[in-house]
Amino acid sequence: MSALVRLRNLEAELLPNKLDSLLVTHLPNIRYLSGFTGSSAALLVGQHGRATLFTDGRYTTQAKEEVAHAQIVIGTKAPVIAAAEWLMAALRPKRSASPWVLGIEPESLSAGARDRLASVLRGKARVRSAPPLVERARMVKDAGEIRLIRKAAELGASLFRVACAKIRPGRSEVQVAASMEFEARKKSAEGMSFPTIIAAGPRSAVVHGRASAARIPRRGFVVCDFGVILAGYCSDRTRTVHVGKPSQEARTFYGSVLEAQGAALAAVRAGVTAAEVDEAARRVLRKAKLAQYFTHSTGHGLGLEIHEAPRLAVGQTQTLQAGMVVTIEPGAYVPGKWGVRIEDVVVVTATGCQVLASVNRADKELVVIE
Amino acid sequence: MSALVRLRNLEAELLPNKLDSLLVTHLPNIRYLSGFTGSSAALLVGQHGRATLFTDGRYTTQAKEEVAHAQIVIGTKAPVIAAAEWLMAALRPKRSASPWVLGIEPESLSAGARDRLASVLRGKARVRSAPPLVERARMVKDAGEIRLIRKAAELGASLFRVACAKIRPGRSEVQVAASMEFEARKKSAEGMSFPTIIAAGPRSAVVHGRASAARIPRRGFVVCDFGVILAGYCSDRTRTVHVGKPSQEARTFYGSVLEAQGAALAAVRAGVTAAEVDEAARRVLRKAKLAQYFTHSTGHGLGLEIHEAPRLAVGQTQTLQAGMVVTIEPGAYVPGKWGVRIEDVVVVTATGCQVLASVNRADKELVVIE
Repeated sequence: MSALVRLRNLEAELLPNKLDSLLVTHLPNIRYLSGFTGSSAALLVGQHGRATLFTDGRYTTQAKEEVAHAQIVIGTKAPVIAAAEWLMAALRPKRSASPWVLGIEPESLSAGARDRLASVLRGKARVRSAPPLVERARMVKDAGEIRLIRKAAELGASLFRVACAKIRPGRSEVQVAASMEFEARKKSAEGMSFPTIIAAGPRSAVVHGRASAARIPRRGFVVCDFGVILAGYCSDRTRTVHVGKPSQEARTFYGSVLEAQGAALAAVRAGVTAAEVDEAARRVLRKAKLAQYFTHSTGHGLGLEIHEAPRLAVGQTQTLQAGMVVTIEPGAYVPGKWGVRIEDVVVVTATGCQVLASVNRADKELVVIE
Repeated sequence: MSALVRLRNLEAELLPNKLDSLLVTHLPNIRYLSGFTGSSAALLVGQHGRATLFTDGRYTTQAKEEVAHAQIVIGTKAPVIAAAEWLMAALRPKRSASPWVLGIEPESLSAGARDRLASVLRGKARVRSAPPLVERARMVKDAGEIRLIRKAAELGASLFRVACAKIRPGRSEVQVAASMEFEARKKSAEGMSFPTIIAAGPRSAVVHGRASAARIPRRGFVVCDFGVILAGYCSDRTRTVHVGKPSQEARTFYGSVLEAQGAALAAVRAGVTAAEVDEAARRVLRKAKLAQYFTHSTGHGLGLEIHEAPRLAVGQTQTLQAGMVVTIEPGAYVPGKWGVRIEDVVVVTATGCQVLASVNRADKELVVIE
């Protein structure tokens, strides 16, 4: 889908939402709608002619190269203010009984910026918080996006081999993470999509156990949760390995999480709710008497951002649609003892889902590092 | 300076600014005031008793370990909302003719969050944008902070050796950056303080030339701008090397930027304005007829964030004070041809400044890589 189609779809949403135009300030939304990847911009979309991208002199060349379907205004002020002044000038010749309604993205515009915006527009336009129109559109990925996420997922998946080669008793978690990140960079990743998690031994029970200076013990689980950014799109994958011979209890614990992950994968298809997928994983862990240790949600959307809509969690009524890309990542964590998490990224299809970067069917069997 | 002193100093600023309390939402400010390093928090400071930190269940243990001088409230809602509800409960017994005035940090609170906050507090407290009180306090670093920045600067400076070893014609910019980042991680950096810039050949004229897949040419400048985060504090350093034998014109160009950097360093001392330091660099480049190619400001504060107050730029009337830590980084960029930037981090003193991680006097002579 071209940026032009995305823009037209968004424009069609404005009137039903009682907006004359929308000032897009969330950078991933700007990238999605215009192709622009710079770090400072605002995009004005709406019934005043072509979409207009506001940025500054650092990005003159880059904006021309990246943006095809919006006019570009290079300014010296903050992009939001430049957009407001431009809109004021565009509205001046118009006479209207009711003020122009400019929608903003309230979660990505600071309170201070909204004040400055309203002050520039005083008397001529009213600023109103818009619903998350672009985020909703971004939930369903087009073929081009799925191709890019697949590439990111394949690069991301390849880092697990590095993890297995580097995880040894006595090494620090951060040494393992550093080797994985180095490999990612050598393979052209723009960066990691979040701080790499290598959480060993009792630290495997820490859900967000960012790799630390802690040493990998002689025996225990090591949770490896890692993702890359490639051509703007994120990957996300978790595998849990065991250092030293696992006890029967450890094998059973791992098996329960793996079964929960399989049940959630089997529950995914267009038409089910996000909560139903979450419940599929939770049901397995409940039977194994581990439900209390599953302390987070089953998954989240991913794309230009590592966390996007929808959320696969208790109470989420959002219906899954073909083309949504979500993580499936149940886990169980016994504080002070151990934790296991297993995660894949999948594309929702009409009849089920497809795992991105599936290595082979056995790739989630417990890896034991002696 | 302990977190307690920082909190007391801030509390003393509230009344003169007509605030009853302040809701701190900018995470580096929360870290500065409380020691808390988690990614989700709000800190309520003011005349209602002890400072109170609001966070969620992921951070129960961590908050207890890190926070000494504030009470901790673990909630299930967003921290800003938890703080608002807590404040409502605390205000209920009080009868007052005028509503409680709660200051917010308008640049770090989203417009949406301010709306939700105001809606919880309706009728009981008024929400008002506060001046940047914590940012102002953070401009002047205490001895402990300078020690930490020095350590970060020393680790950061050591990466230039890796750059010199890796920069060779035919290698990609990103390969050089990856090696530097790997070294930083092995030496315990928490991450890089910004995307590493390796900009080779004509790309050296791109001010923010984030390392790309572009190959290093046989001949030309390579701008290397890099920094690490260590124990929360940032480093920032730029060196420009030349691959192949430099022309006399290239040597002269480099020499002019080096002279401008020296002039700016010589201008730094407590009592001068930020604009005077900027002008010292600009004057040298003007004489060399290069002023038009110096398209950014001379420097910026750094500490818990890579860009902090003050800005060393045209028109900045802020007076430098002993203990401020700033970058000094003039550059010149001829589009399509080449660019040079040289940068150090310095601590302002009563009589001048001290370069953090000064290797030796000759360390800024042009490095030629044959």
